[in-house]
Amino acid sequence: MATLDKGHHFLIAPDLERPGLTRRVTGLDQNGEASEISVVEERPLTIFLNSQEIVTAMTIGDYPQYLALGFLRNQGMLSVDDIVTGVDFDEELETVVVRTEHQTDHEEKLKKKTRTSGCAVGTVFGDMMEGLEGLELPQTEVRTSWLYSLADQINRTPSLYLEAGAIHGTILCHEDRPLVYMEDVGRHNAVDKIAGWMMSEGADAGDKILYTTGRLTSEMVIKTAMMGIPVLASRSGFTAWGVEIAREVGLTLIGRMRGRRFICLAGEDRLIRDADPSSVRDENARHTRKGRA
Amino acid sequence: MATLDKGHHFLIAPDLERPGLTRRVTGLDQNGEASEISVVEERPLTIFLNSQEIVTAMTIGDYPQYLALGFLRNQGMLSVDDIVTGVDFDEELETVVVRTEHQTDHEEKLKKKTRTSGCAVGTVFGDMMEGLEGLELPQTEVRTSWLYSLADQINRTPSLYLEAGAIHGTILCHEDRPLVYMEDVGRHNAVDKIAGWMMSEGADAGDKILYTTGRLTSEMVIKTAMMGIPVLASRSGFTAWGVEIAREVGLTLIGRMRGRRFICLAGEDRLIRDADPSSVRDENARHTRKGRA
Repeated sequence: MATLDKGHHFLIAPDLERPGLTRRVTGLDQNGEASEISVVEERPLTIFLNSQEIVTAMTIGDYPQYLALGFLRNQGMLSVDDIVTGVDFDEELETVVVRTEHQTDHEEKLKKKTRTSGCAVGTVFGDMMEGLEGLELPQTEVRTSWLYSLADQINRTPSLYLEAGAIHGTILCHEDRPLVYMEDVGRHNAVDKIAGWMMSEGADAGDKILYTTGRLTSEMVIKTAMMGIPVLASRSGFTAWGVEIAREVGLTLIGRMRGRRFICLAGEDRLIRDADPSSVRDENARHTRKGRA
Repeated sequence: MATLDKGHHFLIAPDLERPGLTRRVTGLDQNGEASEISVVEERPLTIFLNSQEIVTAMTIGDYPQYLALGFLRNQGMLSVDDIVTGVDFDEELETVVVRTEHQTDHEEKLKKKTRTSGCAVGTVFGDMMEGLEGLELPQTEVRTSWLYSLADQINRTPSLYLEAGAIHGTILCHEDRPLVYMEDVGRHNAVDKIAGWMMSEGADAGDKILYTTGRLTSEMVIKTAMMGIPVLASRSGFTAWGVEIAREVGLTLIGRMRGRRFICLAGEDRLIRDADPSSVRDENARHTRKGRA
Protein backbone atom coordinates (compact mmCIF):
# COMPACT_ATOMS: atom_id res chain seq x y z
CA MET A 1 0.00 0.00 0.00
CA ALA A 2 1.43 3.34 -1.06
CA THR A 3 1.87 6.19 1.33
CA LEU A 4 1.47 9.87 0.53
CA ASP A 5 3.54 12.48 2.21
CA LYS A 6 0.45 14.10 3.65
CA GLY A 7 0.16 11.00 5.78
CA HIS A 8 -2.76 9.71 3.76
CA HIS A 9 -3.02 6.22 2.44
CA PHE A 10 -4.51 5.02 -0.77
CA LEU A 11 -6.95 2.17 -0.37
CA ILE A 12 -5.61 0.89 -3.68
CA ALA A 13 -2.49 2.31 -5.35
CA PRO A 14 -0.51 1.22 -8.39
CA ASP A 15 1.42 -1.88 -7.40
CA LEU A 16 4.72 -1.79 -9.21
CA GLU A 17 5.88 -4.99 -7.54
CA ARG A 18 2.95 -7.04 -8.81
CA PRO A 19 4.25 -9.58 -11.30
CA GLY A 20 2.88 -9.66 -14.83
CA LEU A 21 1.93 -6.02 -15.31
CA THR A 22 5.05 -4.94 -17.17
CA ARG A 23 7.77 -6.72 -19.09
CA ARG A 24 11.38 -5.79 -19.81
CA VAL A 25 12.15 -5.74 -23.52
CA THR A 26 15.39 -4.94 -25.27
CA GLY A 27 15.73 -2.88 -28.42
CA LEU A 28 18.21 -0.54 -30.04
CA ASP A 29 18.17 3.18 -29.38
CA GLN A 30 18.96 6.04 -31.79
CA ASN A 31 22.68 5.33 -31.49
CA GLY A 32 22.23 1.65 -32.26
CA GLU A 33 22.97 0.78 -28.66
CA ALA A 34 21.04 -1.90 -26.81
CA SER A 35 18.46 -0.39 -24.52
CA GLU A 36 16.18 -2.23 -22.15
CA ILE A 37 12.85 -0.65 -21.25
CA SER A 38 9.68 -1.61 -19.41
CA VAL A 39 6.53 -1.98 -21.45
CA VAL A 40 3.02 -2.62 -20.14
CA GLU A 41 1.30 -5.94 -20.67
CA GLU A 42 -1.93 -6.12 -22.64
CA ARG A 43 -4.02 -9.27 -22.50
CA PRO A 44 -7.52 -10.31 -23.49
CA LEU A 45 -10.19 -10.82 -20.84
CA THR A 46 -13.55 -12.20 -21.88
CA ILE A 47 -16.45 -11.15 -19.69
CA PHE A 48 -19.51 -13.35 -19.28
CA LEU A 49 -22.81 -12.41 -17.66
CA ASN A 50 -24.15 -15.78 -16.54
CA SER A 51 -23.93 -17.96 -19.65
CA GLN A 52 -23.83 -15.05 -22.09
CA GLU A 53 -20.48 -13.93 -23.51
CA ILE A 54 -20.52 -10.14 -23.46
CA VAL A 55 -17.19 -8.72 -24.52
CA THR A 56 -13.46 -9.31 -24.81
CA ALA A 57 -11.55 -6.40 -23.34
CA MET A 58 -7.83 -5.82 -23.72
CA THR A 59 -6.52 -5.13 -20.24
CA ILE A 60 -3.33 -4.97 -18.25
CA GLY A 61 -4.76 -7.82 -16.22
CA ASP A 62 -5.03 -6.69 -12.60
CA TYR A 63 -8.40 -6.68 -10.81
CA PRO A 64 -10.30 -8.70 -13.46
CA GLN A 65 -13.29 -9.10 -11.16
CA TYR A 66 -13.62 -5.36 -10.60
CA LEU A 67 -13.24 -4.79 -14.32
CA ALA A 68 -16.01 -7.26 -15.17
CA LEU A 69 -18.41 -5.98 -12.53
CA GLY A 70 -17.76 -2.34 -13.35
CA PHE A 71 -18.00 -2.88 -17.10
CA LEU A 72 -21.39 -4.57 -16.81
CA ARG A 73 -22.62 -1.92 -14.39
CA ASN A 74 -21.43 1.00 -16.52
CA GLN A 75 -23.02 -0.58 -19.58
CA GLY A 76 -26.32 -0.76 -17.78
CA MET A 77 -26.31 -4.57 -18.16
CA LEU A 78 -26.23 -5.04 -14.41
CA SER A 79 -28.72 -2.89 -12.52
CA VAL A 80 -28.63 -1.98 -8.84
CA ASP A 81 -31.45 -4.49 -8.35
CA ASP A 82 -29.52 -7.43 -9.74
CA ILE A 83 -28.08 -9.57 -6.97
CA VAL A 84 -24.59 -10.75 -7.84
CA THR A 85 -24.01 -14.26 -6.50
CA GLY A 86 -20.48 -14.78 -7.81
CA VAL A 87 -17.64 -13.32 -9.81
CA ASP A 88 -15.33 -16.09 -11.00
CA PHE A 89 -12.01 -15.38 -12.69
CA ASP A 90 -10.26 -18.15 -14.60
CA GLU A 91 -6.70 -17.05 -15.25
CA GLU A 92 -5.95 -19.82 -17.72
CA LEU A 93 -9.07 -19.26 -19.82
CA GLU A 94 -8.76 -15.47 -19.41
CA THR A 95 -12.42 -15.19 -18.52
CA VAL A 96 -14.53 -13.68 -15.79
CA VAL A 97 -18.05 -14.93 -15.21
CA VAL A 98 -20.40 -12.66 -13.29
CA ARG A 99 -23.36 -14.61 -11.92
CA THR A 100 -26.63 -13.09 -10.80
CA GLU A 101 -29.43 -14.58 -8.72
CA HIS A 102 -31.94 -14.18 -11.56
CA GLN A 103 -31.38 -13.95 -15.27
CA THR A 104 -30.98 -10.32 -16.25
CA ASP A 105 -32.63 -8.68 -19.24
CA HIS A 106 -29.25 -8.49 -20.94
CA GLU A 107 -30.24 -10.80 -23.75
CA GLU A 108 -32.89 -8.40 -24.93
CA LYS A 109 -30.43 -5.58 -24.46
CA LEU A 110 -27.83 -7.36 -26.54
CA LYS A 111 -30.10 -7.12 -29.54
CA LYS A 112 -30.28 -3.37 -29.26
CA LYS A 113 -26.61 -3.05 -28.82
CA THR A 114 -24.33 -1.34 -31.24
CA ARG A 115 -20.73 -2.25 -31.20
CA THR A 116 -18.42 0.69 -31.26
CA SER A 117 -14.84 1.12 -32.24
CA GLY A 118 -11.93 3.42 -31.75
CA CYS A 119 -10.06 4.97 -28.94
CA ALA A 120 -12.71 7.44 -27.89
CA VAL A 121 -15.32 4.77 -27.56
CA GLY A 122 -15.17 1.03 -27.35
CA THR A 123 -18.44 0.30 -25.70
CA VAL A 124 -22.11 0.49 -26.02
CA PHE A 125 -23.83 3.82 -26.29
CA GLY A 126 -27.44 2.75 -26.63
CA ASP A 127 -27.55 1.19 -23.19
CA MET A 128 -25.40 3.82 -21.61
CA MET A 129 -27.42 6.82 -22.74
CA GLU A 130 -30.52 4.93 -21.65
CA GLY A 131 -29.06 4.59 -18.16
CA LEU A 132 -28.75 8.36 -17.88
CA GLU A 133 -32.47 9.05 -18.18
CA GLY A 134 -33.75 10.65 -15.00
CA LEU A 135 -30.30 10.69 -13.43
CA GLU A 136 -29.76 13.37 -10.81
CA LEU A 137 -26.28 14.07 -9.54
CA PRO A 138 -26.07 15.55 -6.03
CA GLN A 139 -25.32 19.25 -5.56
CA THR A 140 -22.06 18.79 -3.74
CA GLU A 141 -19.31 21.35 -3.52
CA VAL A 142 -15.80 21.02 -4.91
CA ARG A 143 -13.03 23.19 -3.53
CA THR A 144 -10.40 24.24 -6.03
CA SER A 145 -7.82 23.66 -3.28
CA TRP A 146 -8.79 19.99 -3.35
CA LEU A 147 -8.34 19.84 -7.12
CA TYR A 148 -4.86 21.35 -6.96
CA SER A 149 -3.87 19.06 -4.10
CA LEU A 150 -5.23 15.96 -5.85
CA ALA A 151 -3.43 16.72 -9.11
CA ASP A 152 -0.18 17.28 -7.25
CA GLN A 153 -0.46 14.10 -5.17
CA ILE A 154 -1.49 11.98 -8.16
CA ASN A 155 1.33 13.27 -10.37
CA ARG A 156 3.88 12.36 -7.71
CA THR A 157 2.52 8.89 -6.95
CA PRO A 158 4.70 6.06 -8.32
CA SER A 159 2.72 4.47 -11.13
CA LEU A 160 3.01 2.09 -14.04
CA TYR A 161 2.75 5.18 -16.22
CA LEU A 162 5.94 6.58 -14.77
CA GLU A 163 7.55 3.15 -15.04
CA ALA A 164 6.49 2.12 -18.54
CA GLY A 165 4.24 4.78 -20.13
CA ALA A 166 1.47 3.86 -22.60
CA ILE A 167 -1.14 3.52 -19.88
CA HIS A 168 -3.97 5.58 -18.46
CA GLY A 169 -4.88 6.20 -14.85
CA THR A 170 -8.19 6.92 -13.15
CA ILE A 171 -8.36 7.88 -9.52
CA LEU A 172 -11.38 7.92 -7.21
CA CYS A 173 -11.03 10.77 -4.73
CA HIS A 174 -12.81 12.15 -1.68
CA GLU A 175 -12.23 15.84 -1.05
CA ASP A 176 -8.44 16.25 -1.22
CA ARG A 177 -7.68 12.58 -0.74
CA PRO A 178 -7.04 10.13 -3.58
CA LEU A 179 -8.50 6.77 -2.54
CA VAL A 180 -8.34 4.24 -5.37
CA TYR A 181 -5.83 4.57 -8.21
CA MET A 182 -6.42 2.21 -11.13
CA GLU A 183 -4.37 2.04 -14.32
CA ASP A 184 -5.02 0.21 -17.56
CA VAL A 185 -4.05 0.17 -21.22
CA GLY A 186 -7.65 1.17 -21.91
CA ARG A 187 -8.70 4.22 -19.93
CA HIS A 188 -12.26 2.90 -19.93
CA ASN A 189 -11.04 -0.22 -18.18
CA ALA A 190 -9.47 1.90 -15.46
CA VAL A 191 -12.83 3.60 -14.88
CA ASP A 192 -14.67 0.28 -14.95
CA LYS A 193 -12.30 -1.15 -12.36
CA ILE A 194 -13.11 1.79 -10.10
CA ALA A 195 -16.83 1.15 -10.65
CA GLY A 196 -16.37 -2.53 -9.79
CA TRP A 197 -14.50 -1.63 -6.62
CA MET A 198 -17.27 0.79 -5.62
CA MET A 199 -19.93 -1.88 -6.18
CA SER A 200 -17.99 -4.45 -4.18
CA GLU A 201 -17.39 -2.05 -1.30
CA GLY A 202 -20.80 -0.37 -1.44
CA ALA A 203 -18.97 2.96 -1.64
CA ASP A 204 -20.91 6.22 -1.84
CA ALA A 205 -20.55 8.02 -5.16
CA GLY A 206 -22.21 11.35 -4.43
CA ASP A 207 -19.31 12.77 -2.40
CA LYS A 208 -16.55 11.65 -4.75
CA ILE A 209 -14.41 13.24 -7.45
CA LEU A 210 -13.11 11.21 -10.37
CA TYR A 211 -9.73 12.19 -11.82
CA THR A 212 -8.53 10.74 -15.11
CA THR A 213 -5.35 11.15 -17.10
CA GLY A 214 -7.28 10.61 -20.32
CA ARG A 215 -9.48 12.75 -22.51
CA LEU A 216 -12.96 13.85 -21.52
CA THR A 217 -14.91 12.10 -24.24
CA SER A 218 -18.64 11.36 -24.28
CA GLU A 219 -17.99 7.87 -23.00
CA MET A 220 -15.92 9.02 -20.02
CA VAL A 221 -18.61 11.51 -19.07
CA ILE A 222 -21.38 8.91 -19.45
CA LYS A 223 -19.50 6.36 -17.34
CA THR A 224 -18.83 8.90 -14.58
CA ALA A 225 -22.50 9.91 -14.53
CA MET A 226 -23.61 6.26 -14.57
CA MET A 227 -21.49 5.77 -11.46
CA GLY A 228 -23.27 8.69 -9.77
CA ILE A 229 -20.07 10.72 -9.37
CA PRO A 230 -20.80 14.44 -9.82
CA VAL A 231 -17.30 15.68 -10.69
CA LEU A 232 -14.84 14.58 -13.40
CA ALA A 233 -11.43 16.22 -13.76
CA SER A 234 -8.57 15.61 -16.18
CA ARG A 235 -5.27 17.01 -17.28
CA SER A 236 -6.34 16.25 -20.88
CA GLY A 237 -8.84 17.98 -23.14
CA PHE A 238 -12.47 17.68 -24.13
CA THR A 239 -14.68 16.53 -26.95
CA ALA A 240 -17.75 18.60 -27.81
CA TRP A 241 -20.13 15.76 -27.07
CA GLY A 242 -18.48 15.12 -23.71
CA VAL A 243 -19.15 18.74 -22.78
CA GLU A 244 -22.73 18.56 -24.07
CA ILE A 245 -23.60 15.46 -22.05
CA ALA A 246 -21.95 16.84 -18.90
CA ARG A 247 -24.06 20.00 -19.20
CA GLU A 248 -27.19 17.94 -19.80
CA VAL A 249 -26.76 15.70 -16.77
CA GLY A 250 -25.35 18.44 -14.53
CA LEU A 251 -21.88 16.97 -14.09
CA THR A 252 -18.95 19.22 -13.22
CA LEU A 253 -16.36 18.83 -15.97
CA ILE A 254 -12.86 20.21 -15.50
CA GLY A 255 -10.12 19.73 -18.07
CA ARG A 256 -6.66 20.82 -19.13
CA MET A 257 -5.51 20.79 -15.49
CA ARG A 258 -1.81 21.68 -15.72
CA GLY A 259 -0.18 23.31 -12.75
CA ARG A 260 -2.31 26.29 -11.78
CA ARG A 261 -4.35 26.26 -14.97
CA PHE A 262 -7.65 24.50 -15.66
CA ILE A 263 -10.89 25.17 -17.45
CA CYS A 264 -14.35 24.20 -16.25
CA LEU A 265 -16.80 23.65 -19.11
CA ALA A 266 -19.82 22.29 -17.21
CA GLY A 267 -21.27 22.35 -13.71
CA GLU A 268 -19.30 25.42 -12.59
CA ASP A 269 -21.86 25.95 -9.78
CA ARG A 270 -20.22 23.21 -7.67
CA LEU A 271 -16.84 24.96 -7.65
CA ILE A 272 -15.77 26.78 -4.49
CA ARG A 273 -12.81 28.92 -5.46
CA ASP A 274 -10.91 28.77 -2.17
CA ALA A 275 -7.41 28.53 -3.66
CA ASP A 276 -5.40 31.38 -5.12
CA PRO A 277 -4.17 30.03 -8.48
CA SER A 278 -1.13 32.30 -8.36
CA SER A 279 0.07 30.48 -5.23
CA VAL A 280 0.08 27.15 -7.09
CA ARG A 281 3.37 26.28 -8.67
CA ASP A 282 3.26 25.79 -12.39
CA GLU A 283 4.37 22.49 -13.81
CA ASN A 284 7.93 22.30 -14.88
CA ALA A 285 9.04 19.96 -17.60
CA ARG A 286 10.37 17.36 -15.18
CA HIS A 287 7.00 17.00 -13.52
CA THR A 288 4.91 17.12 -16.65
CA ARG A 289 3.21 13.79 -16.97
CA LYS A 290 2.96 13.93 -20.71
CA GLY A 291 6.23 15.68 -21.25
CA ARG A 292 8.38 12.75 -20.33
CA ALA A 293 10.12 10.72 -22.97
CA MET B 1 -3.92 21.66 -49.36
CA ALA B 2 -1.16 22.37 -46.90
CA THR B 3 2.33 23.22 -48.00
CA LEU B 4 5.49 22.14 -46.24
CA ASP B 5 8.53 24.33 -46.25
CA LYS B 6 10.53 21.66 -48.04
CA GLY B 7 8.30 22.40 -51.03
CA HIS B 8 6.41 19.16 -50.59
CA HIS B 9 2.67 18.91 -50.61
CA PHE B 10 0.46 16.65 -48.62
CA LEU B 11 -2.10 14.78 -50.68
CA ILE B 12 -4.42 15.15 -47.68
CA ALA B 13 -3.62 17.39 -44.72
CA PRO B 14 -5.66 18.43 -41.68
CA ASP B 15 -8.25 20.91 -42.91
CA LEU B 16 -8.76 23.44 -40.16
CA GLU B 17 -11.23 25.43 -42.26
CA ARG B 18 -13.57 22.50 -42.74
CA PRO B 19 -16.80 23.23 -40.87
CA GLY B 20 -18.07 20.84 -38.24
CA LEU B 21 -14.78 19.38 -36.98
CA THR B 22 -14.37 21.62 -33.95
CA ARG B 23 -16.70 23.77 -31.90
CA ARG B 24 -16.05 26.87 -29.79
CA VAL B 25 -17.24 26.43 -26.20
CA THR B 26 -17.04 28.85 -23.32
CA GLY B 27 -16.15 27.95 -19.77
CA LEU B 28 -14.47 29.51 -16.78
CA ASP B 29 -10.75 29.27 -16.20
CA GLN B 30 -8.82 28.92 -12.91
CA ASN B 31 -9.40 32.61 -12.17
CA GLY B 32 -13.14 32.39 -12.77
CA GLU B 33 -12.77 34.30 -16.01
CA ALA B 34 -14.70 33.36 -19.13
CA SER B 35 -12.49 31.47 -21.55
CA GLU B 36 -13.46 30.27 -25.00
CA ILE B 37 -11.68 27.23 -26.40
CA SER B 38 -11.99 24.92 -29.39
CA VAL B 39 -13.03 21.34 -28.75
CA VAL B 40 -13.21 18.52 -31.28
CA GLU B 41 -16.51 17.09 -32.41
CA GLU B 42 -17.33 13.46 -31.77
CA ARG B 43 -20.26 11.87 -33.56
CA PRO B 44 -21.57 8.38 -34.19
CA LEU B 45 -21.18 6.76 -37.59
CA THR B 46 -22.83 3.41 -38.21
CA ILE B 47 -21.12 1.25 -40.80
CA PHE B 48 -23.07 -1.28 -42.85
CA LEU B 49 -21.64 -3.97 -45.11
CA ASN B 50 -24.44 -4.51 -47.62
CA SER B 51 -27.54 -5.03 -45.45
CA GLN B 52 -25.62 -6.02 -42.32
CA GLU B 53 -25.03 -3.44 -39.59
CA ILE B 54 -21.43 -3.90 -38.46
CA VAL B 55 -20.43 -1.24 -35.98
CA THR B 56 -21.09 2.25 -34.67
CA ALA B 57 -17.86 4.18 -34.43
CA MET B 58 -17.42 7.53 -32.69
CA THR B 59 -15.60 9.77 -35.12
CA ILE B 60 -14.81 13.38 -35.78
CA GLY B 61 -16.82 13.00 -38.97
CA ASP B 62 -14.54 13.74 -41.91
CA TYR B 63 -13.95 11.12 -44.61
CA PRO B 64 -16.73 8.72 -43.53
CA GLN B 65 -16.35 6.67 -46.70
CA TYR B 66 -12.63 6.12 -46.13
CA LEU B 67 -13.34 5.25 -42.51
CA ALA B 68 -15.94 2.64 -43.45
CA LEU B 69 -13.86 1.06 -46.19
CA GLY B 70 -10.70 1.01 -44.11
CA PHE B 71 -12.45 -0.33 -41.02
CA LEU B 72 -13.96 -3.25 -42.94
CA ARG B 73 -10.65 -3.94 -44.66
CA ASN B 74 -8.61 -3.80 -41.46
CA GLN B 75 -11.12 -6.09 -39.75
CA GLY B 76 -10.70 -8.63 -42.52
CA MET B 77 -14.41 -8.32 -43.37
CA LEU B 78 -13.60 -7.03 -46.81
CA SER B 79 -10.96 -8.99 -48.66
CA VAL B 80 -8.89 -7.87 -51.61
CA ASP B 81 -11.09 -10.09 -53.77
CA ASP B 82 -14.32 -8.37 -52.82
CA ILE B 83 -15.41 -5.90 -55.48
CA VAL B 84 -16.81 -2.75 -53.90
CA THR B 85 -19.67 -1.39 -56.00
CA GLY B 86 -20.60 1.57 -53.85
CA VAL B 87 -19.89 3.47 -50.64
CA ASP B 88 -22.89 5.58 -49.68
CA PHE B 89 -22.77 8.11 -46.86
CA ASP B 90 -26.03 9.47 -45.45
CA GLU B 91 -25.20 12.49 -43.33
CA GLU B 92 -28.64 12.75 -41.74
CA LEU B 93 -28.81 9.08 -40.74
CA GLU B 94 -25.11 9.07 -39.81
CA THR B 95 -24.56 5.87 -41.75
CA VAL B 96 -22.21 4.57 -44.41
CA VAL B 97 -23.22 1.57 -46.49
CA VAL B 98 -20.42 -0.31 -48.25
CA ARG B 99 -21.81 -2.44 -51.07
CA THR B 100 -20.01 -5.36 -52.67
CA GLU B 101 -20.73 -7.19 -55.91
CA HIS B 102 -21.28 -10.47 -54.10
CA GLN B 103 -22.32 -11.13 -50.52
CA THR B 104 -19.22 -11.46 -48.38
CA ASP B 105 -18.66 -14.12 -45.75
CA HIS B 106 -19.07 -11.50 -43.04
CA GLU B 107 -22.17 -13.08 -41.59
CA GLU B 108 -20.29 -16.20 -40.66
CA LYS B 109 -17.47 -14.03 -39.40
CA LEU B 110 -19.82 -12.03 -37.24
CA LYS B 111 -20.58 -15.12 -35.23
CA LYS B 112 -16.96 -15.61 -34.38
CA LYS B 113 -16.49 -12.03 -33.48
CA THR B 114 -15.71 -10.88 -30.00
CA ARG B 115 -16.59 -7.37 -29.13
CA THR B 116 -13.84 -5.53 -27.40
CA SER B 117 -13.74 -2.48 -25.24
CA GLY B 118 -11.41 0.16 -23.98
CA CYS B 119 -9.07 2.68 -25.42
CA ALA B 120 -6.38 0.23 -26.41
CA VAL B 121 -8.76 -1.85 -28.41
CA GLY B 122 -12.23 -1.25 -29.69
CA THR B 123 -12.36 -3.75 -32.49
CA VAL B 124 -12.28 -7.33 -33.36
CA PHE B 125 -9.24 -9.42 -32.65
CA GLY B 126 -10.35 -12.80 -33.90
CA ASP B 127 -10.70 -11.65 -37.48
CA MET B 128 -7.67 -9.44 -37.35
CA MET B 129 -5.24 -12.03 -36.09
CA GLU B 130 -6.64 -14.42 -38.68
CA GLY B 131 -5.82 -11.90 -41.40
CA LEU B 132 -2.15 -11.98 -40.39
CA GLU B 133 -1.60 -15.65 -41.15
CA GLY B 134 0.96 -16.04 -43.89
CA LEU B 135 1.54 -12.31 -44.12
CA GLU B 136 4.92 -11.27 -45.46
CA LEU B 137 6.03 -7.68 -45.20
CA PRO B 138 8.58 -6.56 -47.79
CA GLN B 139 12.24 -6.11 -46.82
CA THR B 140 12.41 -2.40 -47.49
CA GLU B 141 14.91 -0.03 -45.98
CA VAL B 142 14.14 2.87 -43.70
CA ARG B 143 16.66 5.66 -43.32
CA THR B 144 16.83 7.25 -39.90
CA SER B 145 17.22 10.61 -41.67
CA TRP B 146 13.71 10.10 -43.07
CA LEU B 147 12.33 9.34 -39.62
CA TYR B 148 13.82 12.52 -38.13
CA SER B 149 12.61 14.59 -41.06
CA LEU B 150 9.10 13.12 -40.92
CA ALA B 151 8.73 13.72 -37.19
CA ASP B 152 9.89 17.30 -37.60
CA GLN B 153 7.56 18.04 -40.52
CA ILE B 154 4.59 16.39 -38.86
CA ASN B 155 5.08 18.21 -35.56
CA ARG B 156 5.11 21.54 -37.37
CA THR B 157 2.07 20.89 -39.57
CA PRO B 158 -1.05 22.83 -38.49
CA SER B 159 -3.50 20.27 -37.15
CA LEU B 160 -6.72 19.89 -35.22
CA TYR B 161 -4.52 18.63 -32.39
CA LEU B 162 -2.71 21.93 -32.19
CA GLU B 163 -6.04 23.76 -32.49
CA ALA B 164 -8.18 21.76 -30.07
CA GLY B 165 -6.22 18.86 -28.53
CA ALA B 166 -7.90 15.59 -27.56
CA ILE B 167 -7.33 13.99 -30.95
CA HIS B 168 -4.90 11.54 -32.51
CA GLY B 169 -3.13 11.73 -35.83
CA THR B 170 -1.88 9.06 -38.22
CA ILE B 171 0.24 9.93 -41.21
CA LEU B 172 1.04 7.81 -44.25
CA CYS B 173 4.55 8.59 -45.46
CA HIS B 174 6.85 7.71 -48.33
CA GLU B 175 10.56 8.04 -47.57
CA ASP B 176 10.90 11.51 -46.01
CA ARG B 177 7.59 12.80 -47.34
CA PRO B 178 4.33 12.78 -45.34
CA LEU B 179 1.52 12.11 -47.81
CA VAL B 180 -1.82 11.67 -46.04
CA TYR B 181 -2.45 13.10 -42.56
CA MET B 182 -5.65 11.89 -40.91
CA GLU B 183 -6.86 12.85 -37.44
CA ASP B 184 -9.67 11.42 -35.34
CA VAL B 185 -10.93 11.20 -31.77
CA GLY B 186 -10.25 7.48 -32.04
CA ARG B 187 -6.70 6.77 -33.19
CA HIS B 188 -7.93 3.57 -34.80
CA ASN B 189 -10.30 5.59 -36.92
CA ALA B 190 -7.39 7.70 -38.16
CA VAL B 191 -5.60 4.52 -39.26
CA ASP B 192 -8.74 3.13 -40.85
CA LYS B 193 -9.25 6.35 -42.82
CA ILE B 194 -5.72 5.94 -44.19
CA ALA B 195 -6.51 2.34 -45.12
CA GLY B 196 -9.69 3.46 -46.88
CA TRP B 197 -7.80 6.12 -48.81
CA MET B 198 -5.19 3.55 -49.86
CA MET B 199 -7.90 1.17 -51.08
CA SER B 200 -9.64 3.91 -53.03
CA GLU B 201 -6.42 5.12 -54.62
CA GLY B 202 -4.90 1.68 -55.10
CA ALA B 203 -1.81 2.93 -53.28
CA ASP B 204 1.18 0.68 -52.74
CA ALA B 205 1.79 -0.22 -49.10
CA GLY B 206 5.17 -1.92 -49.24
CA ASP B 207 7.19 1.28 -49.67
CA LYS B 208 5.36 3.27 -46.99
CA ILE B 209 5.97 4.27 -43.38
CA LEU B 210 3.08 4.81 -40.97
CA TYR B 211 3.53 7.43 -38.27
CA THR B 212 1.08 7.70 -35.38
CA THR B 213 0.80 10.03 -32.44
CA GLY B 214 -0.80 7.27 -30.39
CA ARG B 215 0.49 4.28 -28.49
CA LEU B 216 1.87 1.18 -30.18
CA THR B 217 -0.70 -1.33 -28.95
CA SER B 218 -1.41 -4.76 -30.40
CA GLU B 219 -4.27 -3.35 -32.42
CA MET B 220 -2.19 -0.60 -34.02
CA VAL B 221 0.46 -3.14 -34.98
CA ILE B 222 -2.12 -5.56 -36.37
CA LYS B 223 -3.82 -2.85 -38.44
CA THR B 224 -0.51 -1.64 -39.86
CA ALA B 225 0.45 -5.19 -40.80
CA MET B 226 -3.01 -5.84 -42.29
CA MET B 227 -2.43 -2.82 -44.50
CA GLY B 228 0.88 -4.32 -45.66
CA ILE B 229 2.94 -1.39 -44.35
CA PRO B 230 6.30 -2.64 -43.03
CA VAL B 231 7.19 0.26 -40.69
CA LEU B 232 5.25 1.84 -37.80
CA ALA B 233 6.69 4.77 -35.85
CA SER B 234 5.31 6.77 -32.95
CA ARG B 235 6.28 9.38 -30.42
CA SER B 236 4.35 7.35 -27.83
CA GLY B 237 5.20 4.10 -26.07
CA PHE B 238 4.61 0.39 -26.51
CA THR B 239 2.58 -2.45 -25.08
CA ALA B 240 4.24 -5.84 -24.69
CA TRP B 241 1.80 -7.54 -27.04
CA GLY B 242 2.31 -4.85 -29.67
CA VAL B 243 6.03 -5.61 -29.59
CA GLU B 244 5.43 -9.36 -29.69
CA ILE B 245 3.17 -9.21 -32.74
CA ALA B 246 5.53 -6.84 -34.57
CA ARG B 247 8.41 -9.28 -34.00
CA GLU B 248 6.26 -12.18 -35.15
CA VAL B 249 5.15 -10.58 -38.42
CA GLY B 250 8.48 -8.85 -39.07
CA LEU B 251 7.25 -5.27 -38.78
CA THR B 252 9.69 -2.50 -37.88
CA LEU B 253 8.40 -0.87 -34.70
CA ILE B 254 9.87 2.43 -33.52
CA GLY B 255 8.56 4.28 -30.49
CA ARG B 256 9.27 7.09 -28.06
CA MET B 257 10.46 9.29 -30.93
CA ARG B 258 11.22 12.61 -29.24
CA GLY B 259 13.71 14.89 -30.84
CA ARG B 260 16.85 12.85 -31.46
CA ARG B 261 15.76 9.94 -29.30
CA PHE B 262 13.88 6.82 -30.33
CA ILE B 263 13.90 3.11 -29.60
CA CYS B 264 13.38 0.32 -32.11
CA LEU B 265 11.90 -2.82 -30.56
CA ALA B 266 11.24 -4.90 -33.66
CA GLY B 267 12.45 -5.18 -37.26
CA GLU B 268 15.73 -3.32 -36.65
CA ASP B 269 17.15 -4.92 -39.82
CA ARG B 270 15.28 -2.40 -42.01
CA LEU B 271 16.96 0.59 -40.36
CA ILE B 272 19.72 2.38 -42.25
CA ARG B 273 21.43 4.63 -39.75
CA ASP B 274 22.38 7.46 -42.09
CA ALA B 275 21.68 10.33 -39.68
CA ASP B 276 23.89 11.44 -36.83
CA PRO B 277 21.52 11.70 -33.85
CA SER B 278 23.69 14.35 -32.23
CA SER B 279 23.02 16.65 -35.19
CA VAL B 280 19.26 16.47 -34.58
CA ARG B 281 17.93 19.20 -32.33
CA ASP B 282 16.22 17.98 -29.20
CA GLU B 283 12.65 18.98 -28.62
CA ASN B 284 12.14 22.02 -26.53
CA ALA B 285 9.01 22.47 -24.46
CA ARG B 286 7.34 24.77 -26.98
CA HIS B 287 7.55 22.18 -29.72
CA THR B 288 6.62 19.21 -27.59
CA ARG B 289 3.38 17.88 -28.93
CA LYS B 290 2.23 16.44 -25.67
CA GLY B 291 3.73 19.16 -23.54
CA ARG B 292 1.25 21.80 -24.55
CA ALA B 293 -1.51 22.88 -22.22
